[in-house]
Amino acid sequence: MKAGIVGATGYGGIELFRLLNDHPHIESLTLFSSSQAGEEFENIYQQLNIGSNHILQDVEPDRMKDEFDVIFLATPAGVSSKLTPNLRGGHAKVVDLSGDLRLADPSDYTQWYKKDPAPSEVLQDAVYGLPEWNDAEISGAEVIANPGCYPTATLLGLGPVIKEQLVDPSSIIVDAKSGVSGAGKNPNPLTHFAHTQENFQIYKVNQHQHIPEIEQQLKRWDDHARPITFSTHLVPMTRGIMATIYGTLNKDQSVQDVLEVYQSYYKDQPFVRIREEGQFPCTKDVYQTNYCDIGIAVDERTNRITIVSVIDNLMKGAASQAIQNMNLLFGLEETAGLPRYPLYP
Amino acid sequence: MKAGIVGATGYGGIELFRLLNDHPHIESLTLFSSSQAGEEFENIYQQLNIGSNHILQDVEPDRMKDEFDVIFLATPAGVSSKLTPNLRGGHAKVVDLSGDLRLADPSDYTQWYKKDPAPSEVLQDAVYGLPEWNDAEISGAEVIANPGCYPTATLLGLGPVIKEQLVDPSSIIVDAKSGVSGAGKNPNPLTHFAHTQENFQIYKVNQHQHIPEIEQQLKRWDDHARPITFSTHLVPMTRGIMATIYGTLNKDQSVQDVLEVYQSYYKDQPFVRIREEGQFPCTKDVYQTNYCDIGIAVDERTNRITIVSVIDNLMKGAASQAIQNMNLLFGLEETAGLPRYPLYP
Amino acid sequence: MKAGIVGATGYGGIELFRLLNDHPHIESLTLFSSSQAGEEFENIYQQLNIGSNHILQDVEPDRMKDEFDVIFLATPAGVSSKLTPNLRGGHAKVVDLSGDLRLADPSDYTQWYKKDPAPSEVLQDAVYGLPEWNDAEISGAEVIANPGCYPTATLLGLGPVIKEQLVDPSSIIVDAKSGVSGAGKNPNPLTHFAHTQENFQIYKVNQHQHIPEIEQQLKRWDDHARPITFSTHLVPMTRGIMATIYGTLNKDQSVQDVLEVYQSYYKDQPFVRIREEGQFPCTKDVYQTNYCDIGIAVDERTNRITIVSVIDNLMKGAASQAIQNMNLLFGLEETAGLPRYPLYP
Amino acid sequence: MKAGIVGATGYGGIELFRLLNDHPHIESLTLFSSSQAGEEFENIYQQLNIGSNHILQDVEPDRMKDEFDVIFLATPAGVSSKLTPNLRGGHAKVVDLSGDLRLADPSDYTQWYKKDPAPSEVLQDAVYGLPEWNDAEISGAEVIANPGCYPTATLLGLGPVIKEQLVDPSSIIVDAKSGVSGAGKNPNPLTHFAHTQENFQIYKVNQHQHIPEIEQQLKRWDDHARPITFSTHLVPMTRGIMATIYGTLNKDQSVQDVLEVYQSYYKDQPFVRIREEGQFPCTKDVYQTNYCDIGIAVDERTNRITIVSVIDNLMKGAASQAIQNMNLLFGLEETAGLPRYPLYP
Repeated sequence: MKAGIVGATGYGGIELFRLLNDHPHIESLTLFSSSQAGEEFENIYQQLNIGSNHILQDVEPDRMKDEFDVIFLATPAGVSSKLTPNLRGGHAKVVDLSGDLRLADPSDYTQWYKKDPAPSEVLQDAVYGLPEWNDAEISGAEVIANPGCYPTATLLGLGPVIKEQLVDPSSIIVDAKSGVSGAGKNPNPLTHFAHTQENFQIYKVNQHQHIPEIEQQLKRWDDHARPITFSTHLVPMTRGIMATIYGTLNKDQSVQDVLEVYQSYYKDQPFVRIREEGQFPCTKDVYQTNYCDIGIAVDERTNRITIVSVIDNLMKGAASQAIQNMNLLFGLEETAGLPRYPLYP
Repeated sequence: MKAGIVGATGYGGIELFRLLNDHPHIESLTLFSSSQAGEEFENIYQQLNIGSNHILQDVEPDRMKDEFDVIFLATPAGVSSKLTPNLRGGHAKVVDLSGDLRLADPSDYTQWYKKDPAPSEVLQDAVYGLPEWNDAEISGAEVIANPGCYPTATLLGLGPVIKEQLVDPSSIIVDAKSGVSGAGKNPNPLTHFAHTQENFQIYKVNQHQHIPEIEQQLKRWDDHARPITFSTHLVPMTRGIMATIYGTLNKDQSVQDVLEVYQSYYKDQPFVRIREEGQFPCTKDVYQTNYCDIGIAVDERTNRITIVSVIDNLMKGAASQAIQNMNLLFGLEETAGLPRYPLYP
Repeated sequence: MKAGIVGATGYGGIELFRLLNDHPHIESLTLFSSSQAGEEFENIYQQLNIGSNHILQDVEPDRMKDEFDVIFLATPAGVSSKLTPNLRGGHAKVVDLSGDLRLADPSDYTQWYKKDPAPSEVLQDAVYGLPEWNDAEISGAEVIANPGCYPTATLLGLGPVIKEQLVDPSSIIVDAKSGVSGAGKNPNPLTHFAHTQENFQIYKVNQHQHIPEIEQQLKRWDDHARPITFSTHLVPMTRGIMATIYGTLNKDQSVQDVLEVYQSYYKDQPFVRIREEGQFPCTKDVYQTNYCDIGIAVDERTNRITIVSVIDNLMKGAASQAIQNMNLLFGLEETAGLPRYPLYP
Repeated sequence: MKAGIVGATGYGGIELFRLLNDHPHIESLTLFSSSQAGEEFENIYQQLNIGSNHILQDVEPDRMKDEFDVIFLATPAGVSSKLTPNLRGGHAKVVDLSGDLRLADPSDYTQWYKKDPAPSEVLQDAVYGLPEWNDAEISGAEVIANPGCYPTATLLGLGPVIKEQLVDPSSIIVDAKSGVSGAGKNPNPLTHFAHTQENFQIYKVNQHQHIPEIEQQLKRWDDHARPITFSTHLVPMTRGIMATIYGTLNKDQSVQDVLEVYQSYYKDQPFVRIREEGQFPCTKDVYQTNYCDIGIAVDERTNRITIVSVIDNLMKGAASQAIQNMNLLFGLEETAGLPRYPLYP
């Protein structure tokens, strides 16, 4: 298979580069960058130089749509909404890692992203690529909207209790924490080492653009779903997301009852791991992998459930989930080319 | 004034050492340690050697209770419950930084600390030293139970909405995050650098011993108070706590309305700072100070309030709050000997 | 005394702000910024808001030179070379924290800083403000060139062996390591958290602009001084410098012999602390202080000495050393307004 | 091939576990631990649980030596000196990651490790496994002494200039810096997060047990080799070593001349990468890989060379180099099972 990466020099792009180069079914990989076309990728990232040379190509959708089997868009918000229409109608399938194609309702995009939405027909075509819940649709798709990092952790954590209506939908609070790489590679005051090190910050309280993406999926699972409370925090580390999710149980449930529901929902999913009672994952447990690890507590004093869901934001939250989607799109083994073991320590 | 510190070699103890040495009203300072008596403090902490010598003394309560004006107990759980009775009846006032004297009901202590409680008469005597809410009682006290780090951040954040009954007491969820120094100086696998760096961990879900301390104070403010949901997380940094607190508003309130309540409650408090609408503090904002900084958001979509409260866990969460209590105990200026500016960057 | 800070919003500037506000002899403090004049300082740094307001003033040297007793220049390279001439001839003394006035020979400045040098007469007037070695000159100066961070650590480490000619001057190698704050507050790829965290970098090998500053002082101590080898590294931490200095001993010396020389040279210096044989300081030992801590090893196998010198780059390497210089300039106690204890942990 | 790991629960052991599980030529893997025999490996490291179960086995050398093709010893100093003799004489080849078999002269081991050395015949048999310099010997060996982390970085950096006698052998100074994982997984005060974070420390000045290992190899390359000066520092990061190496050039050499020597020596080595003039590697460039990246500077002012050599201490400095040695031992492709791309960011 021939693959292309648009936006190859961002954090998502270089993870795709690393993973696709070692993927057993990818035989050629081409890198695109509108801002750095003509430069050599290995000059920008000398540590990725292993003897090969990748000249960054100009983005020419007409040519690309027939030349590649799959094109990954690892571009900032506002790019793939314009680019994807021109990549349709040819041979290539498209996996978009940005938020541009995730919201089915264009007005949601306008409201939360403050940009022009993609054309409606593109939005209708795009399949939300959360493989643990959507694999049937994914395998027949032409365009995949790869989920956001926070939604991935949150939705995998919430799916079983929402589907089973175990939790009052109006009670859901998600307290999410992310490493700094989620803010991308462009330097800014918030990601300056001297500011961020030995610091814990909260940002975009109730205003993160991932909120409508989460709520849209909750509604697909249960049309009683309601707006959620959602906070995002910046942890002084590079990778990793933990979503600590709270909800009120609709009826008495032991933690064992709930764990069985999770184990049952995810029993055939190679990338979701449920911890035993009393055990909770930390972000390092999934470092550099495609796993989502989940732990559950039930507090009898308050009748609330606490769901702890962790991912690597650049992997399951971006690049490796995109590969997982590609695997499903092309009928490959779901785990092909994806690391099995987290790095530790 | 003559001051003594019991448990001087722990993290709380060395902060007390640093602050008391520069306190304008302390003229002599004696250090005690049951495990390291006879050793020179400046040999253990060479960086604190500025030419003076402090030999760690054996803990002899009979002698101490008349020799000192104030004795700080910076000891592990289970020590001051036994030591405090023997320090009573003399000249010295006692400020206990441990959790031993904070819970008025001995059975709460037994349940959450899994140790024997202090004698009831000591517990009845001990005043909970949260100066922003309790200054009248503090100034007449003999024994101060210095609040825990998480309760300090949480209670200062919750006080106004609980007193004013703005929030449904059964809806309160506290998602708390702390730097690693909160776990103390004894090395263990959880605080090993290689494990903790580039990692975000959750621990003691619904089981932290600070829960009954928070709930006890909430009940004092409002007897409708109910059990809370409380999670603690370990941030890969040394100092700092952020409590992100969620609650459902009892009636429609704008964020400006709520901010005015907070400003009104804390207008004479030198160590509580309220951020403007749309602004939230980070832990570095209070680094190495006695401040508690608070930011507020109101989400109209869910009718919930988000209260963000940050402190330095070793300062306002331990040593500097103990100094603030001492200042009130002895009728000194409340801010005496306490840093005015956080260190940045 | 009335003090002004030009460049108050940089890392050096805010440290000066913090220290001068608590200095016992400063009664008024005015902040200047050419790029942010008219803005409120406490709006930019909300954590430094303790109820006062400082509007950033335009830099008007004619007015300033008579209005203030002392003016601190915490400006980027190339500013004070132009500004200082206009600040002369009035009442104010000037302490320049930049590198503009440190090199007596203008051609050195041109070569290493790639900018136009200050006028020769200003350079001749400026006294190199290394108080442990230069206090007599400092006390009579009008303009102080406050030493660079690396030179401070290196020169305090090398002074005794150079003055005593214990080390072959052609053998000196300085392997220096700094926290990220030394690179200033402007975000750039090198200080991006995701790049710098869990990374150790070397930069400006043999090309750092602090090299001629070090060599100039070595020559003043011993005219046999020769060019040194000097490497700078970036440590994933915010504050702190360690200079590990190597040299070949001119004759057999025990480590005790050498330590006695150091103790003798620095015995009256409140801010230099010499470790005992076998003990070496770490950067945290001087965190947030004006100390320079030094440890010494002698290796009989190679006849080489290893000198370990640590400072806080923003304090002894910048702001607190500037205060120390101010204290000497005005005949105040050398330690006035400077912290006595490092923060730990 | 069947492989066993003794000491599987240490940092070296779990890296071997991860790498061997994904190695194309390993079909079974057995884990041994004398202290934790009977426990399940995946219970200790839940994040490594991917559905399989590995019960930690007792170390029984008699049985092991015929059952396995290769046995890795990832044990503390003093274990393999006793264990290796009992693992000989059977089918298995042994790769020892500890320092026990590296020093050919038993008295060196006694002096630097303060323990009893391995039997002489074992030391004579053991081949020093630095593949870039020793591949011929390695391929015929029965027992491999896998190099230490510091020696690997230092020797790969020094090899070409020593072999070519470009540098005065009495002038060599190695200033080495390591991440905290090099200190192993047992918690101690030096690796406590609150002590190590935001800190830079020096330790074992001229006393590190890797010194004789480096000097032994230098002597093999050039019998004029002399004792070196060697310092080790602790960087607040988990992985990575940088050795900054200084030496005086024997004659005038441009940096281009020297770079050509390095390129020539390492041109067929898949795991050594030489940077261009003016470029230097950082530790993140080799994160999680088997690479050693090298940069060179020549300072005409001092006639000195600076060699910058970086590795991942747990990979090229331990586990992945052990795999590289295994590949050579069994005639496999040298790169089999080893990552090609570093993780970034």
